[in-house]
Amino acid sequence: MTQMLEARKGHITEEMEKVALIEGVTPEFVREGVAKGHIVIPKNKFRSRDKICGIGGGLDVKVNGLMGTSSDRNDMEMEAKKLRILEECGANAFMDLSTGDDIDAMRKQSLTISNIAAGCVPVYQASVEAIEKHGSMVGMTEDELFDTVEKQCQEGMDFMAIHSALNWSVLNALKKSGRVTDVVSRGGSFLTAWMFHNKKENPLYEHFDRLLEILKATDTVLSIGDAIRPGANADSLDSAQVQGLIVAGELTKRALEAGVQVMIEGPGHVPLNQIATTMQLQKQLCYGVPYYILGFLATDVAPGYDNITGAIGGAFAGMHGADFLCYLTPAEHLGLPNEDDVRMGVRTTKIAADAANVLKRGGNAWNRSLAMSKARVARDEKVQVANALDPEYLESKLKAEPESHGCAACGKSKCPADVAAEFFGIA
Amino acid sequence: MTQMLEARKGHITEEMEKVALIEGVTPEFVREGVAKGHIVIPKNKFRSRDKICGIGGGLDVKVNGLMGTSSDRNDMEMEAKKLRILEECGANAFMDLSTGDDIDAMRKQSLTISNIAAGCVPVYQASVEAIEKHGSMVGMTEDELFDTVEKQCQEGMDFMAIHSALNWSVLNALKKSGRVTDVVSRGGSFLTAWMFHNKKENPLYEHFDRLLEILKATDTVLSIGDAIRPGANADSLDSAQVQGLIVAGELTKRALEAGVQVMIEGPGHVPLNQIATTMQLQKQLCYGVPYYILGFLATDVAPGYDNITGAIGGAFAGMHGADFLCYLTPAEHLGLPNEDDVRMGVRTTKIAADAANVLKRGGNAWNRSLAMSKARVARDEKVQVANALDPEYLESKLKAEPESHGCAACGKSKCPADVAAEFFGIA
Repeated sequence: MTQMLEARKGHITEEMEKVALIEGVTPEFVREGVAKGHIVIPKNKFRSRDKICGIGGGLDVKVNGLMGTSSDRNDMEMEAKKLRILEECGANAFMDLSTGDDIDAMRKQSLTISNIAAGCVPVYQASVEAIEKHGSMVGMTEDELFDTVEKQCQEGMDFMAIHSALNWSVLNALKKSGRVTDVVSRGGSFLTAWMFHNKKENPLYEHFDRLLEILKATDTVLSIGDAIRPGANADSLDSAQVQGLIVAGELTKRALEAGVQVMIEGPGHVPLNQIATTMQLQKQLCYGVPYYILGFLATDVAPGYDNITGAIGGAFAGMHGADFLCYLTPAEHLGLPNEDDVRMGVRTTKIAADAANVLKRGGNAWNRSLAMSKARVARDEKVQVANALDPEYLESKLKAEPESHGCAACGKSKCPADVAAEFFGIA
Repeated sequence: MTQMLEARKGHITEEMEKVALIEGVTPEFVREGVAKGHIVIPKNKFRSRDKICGIGGGLDVKVNGLMGTSSDRNDMEMEAKKLRILEECGANAFMDLSTGDDIDAMRKQSLTISNIAAGCVPVYQASVEAIEKHGSMVGMTEDELFDTVEKQCQEGMDFMAIHSALNWSVLNALKKSGRVTDVVSRGGSFLTAWMFHNKKENPLYEHFDRLLEILKATDTVLSIGDAIRPGANADSLDSAQVQGLIVAGELTKRALEAGVQVMIEGPGHVPLNQIATTMQLQKQLCYGVPYYILGFLATDVAPGYDNITGAIGGAFAGMHGADFLCYLTPAEHLGLPNEDDVRMGVRTTKIAADAANVLKRGGNAWNRSLAMSKARVARDEKVQVANALDPEYLESKLKAEPESHGCAACGKSKCPADVAAEFFGIA
């Protein structure tokens, strides 16, 4: 039985209790959120792990990292390292996007060595195998696609990006309106090509009930892939994107009715003044289920720094209700990330999440921020380090600084800040 | 005559014309903005340079960098390098905050080698000299303070942070309300100590007309220092900060009446959900003059990454009307920045500014972003590089990537994105 169906029966599962404890809310709050679909708990029933996280309304914003092989760089040991870095730096989940030589072995490695929620995009493996078998991904049969989804569920995947919210109504909207960047989603472009070549509806849309049955069997969370997300600021909130969100909402309702945990994957490229609208539309059209966003990228002109453009958009989106931030690394738009990129990607995205989480007065992030501020006044380096997002880095920097901390102006005389402190009675 | 007084006479100066050309607005728009005080053009009448920038309503958000010696690190050659990096990376202005051995020589060097607007904080030099002369900065006489301001104006400083908006009403508000961090402004803490020790009003407030006369003589822009800015998220928008803003507004009115160009320096630590309010209060209380902010820092727990926390808050503030962003470097809260920190600080803050500037459809930033997006679709690397915020970095990365750009999934078969492109008629 899925977490959602348990919740609807009034049962508080072990996972709900863990989430409640971490978040500082009641187990009943979590149960109610899961029952309504406002909270998901990615936890495949065939994969056991300790670190459980809830994603959704009333909980802290969470962070996801991406890793995986490709035909260009097919190094399983490197991917294992990246996954360990992701987890060490505090990512709450990861997605293995491998398209390299032995995708099955890679996935098994990732599921084995990690202790956080694991996600994937089954259409990637299905496409690679279709190329091997049929010479092109457009030769892929519908059964092959669903069999891949089922295999990955049965092996323990906790959540999956599946591009069901792409159908002819969406592609026709795109064709009518035009766009700077057309389709930039990888899964979306595969399926567009497949639909166009085969002159058929997207099987992940057409046979959605079959998909739901597969996911339900293992309680794998459906993350409805944003196949039609804009690839440029200029395309944000265009008719194709909104049409896609309407279709996502239609499918969300069916997933909720079936008791399948579901969240919505979002853009992408969103200018700052469209973030509130984007968030409201998603929450309204998709029955308040969690929004899992990539970015939002606040500007298009900063390749090499897109971890930062993503953090800007992600933080605001978090304030407006985004629940789950997929990281961007400095390698975004440039190539595959290396270990340093992964580390910086998680750190940056954790900052974005924290900037949103800190708004909840009395919550975990707020308390941590307050403790840091008080420790600064008290010059208590130990407490500062304990509350820093990157404690090791802060510790190394504090050790490297001279004793005076560069309070350069007062020289040997009395420090003006101390005089001020006397006045305010905190000396 | 100041730019403001020229503007009020209906004169369009050479500087106003340059600003109009850069911004893509009419010279009359700039003249009107300067006349009202909504736009400042920092340009000391005794310092000639080519790069002119306007700061304020209807113009792009600008970026400032900080540099300068201290008693801990007193290396004029290093500061020259940092200043060159600032300018190369696209900072529109800098402030020399030197408190090292030969402050006069340092300032002359900075004014000579740079071609962008130059700012400083005269109370730093006045304090250092008071320590040398009187054994403590609280021994500083009022004449010594004003003489320092005048010397720096006469030598060519284009703008100055002067902490006039600190008086007993502000300190009493702070004493009544309490705070996590009391006074974190360096200039603010000096003056608090001075006021407390000497039991006198802040001379920069009490003798504000004397200050205005000095600034007016060289058309140095008054940047009213945020002496009372909160040093923690928890203190944002407290009574002391708002009292300080009320005093700043009172002084702004007097500066405008005197024809002295003026802007307001702002925080500091502001949670995301208080940015709109902070911006509105400043614009309303201070007659719409430009807001020059440090950050805003969106969270307190990321020492080592405060360039990023500052970019998050700065971008959002820019959307809400902030005009001028002072950079934060990764060294913020840790020590003095080195050359790499300076480079990263400018890059990051330029991204924040761009995220706000891009919202003006048809403006410079919008056009650049659109050109980048189109070049991505067309795979035109030359145009991508030309429009990148860091073109050298993008170029080096593109050269290092394999020809295929890691489109890993399609292998030797037809690329699905190309199939999709055919469908949409853009192949």
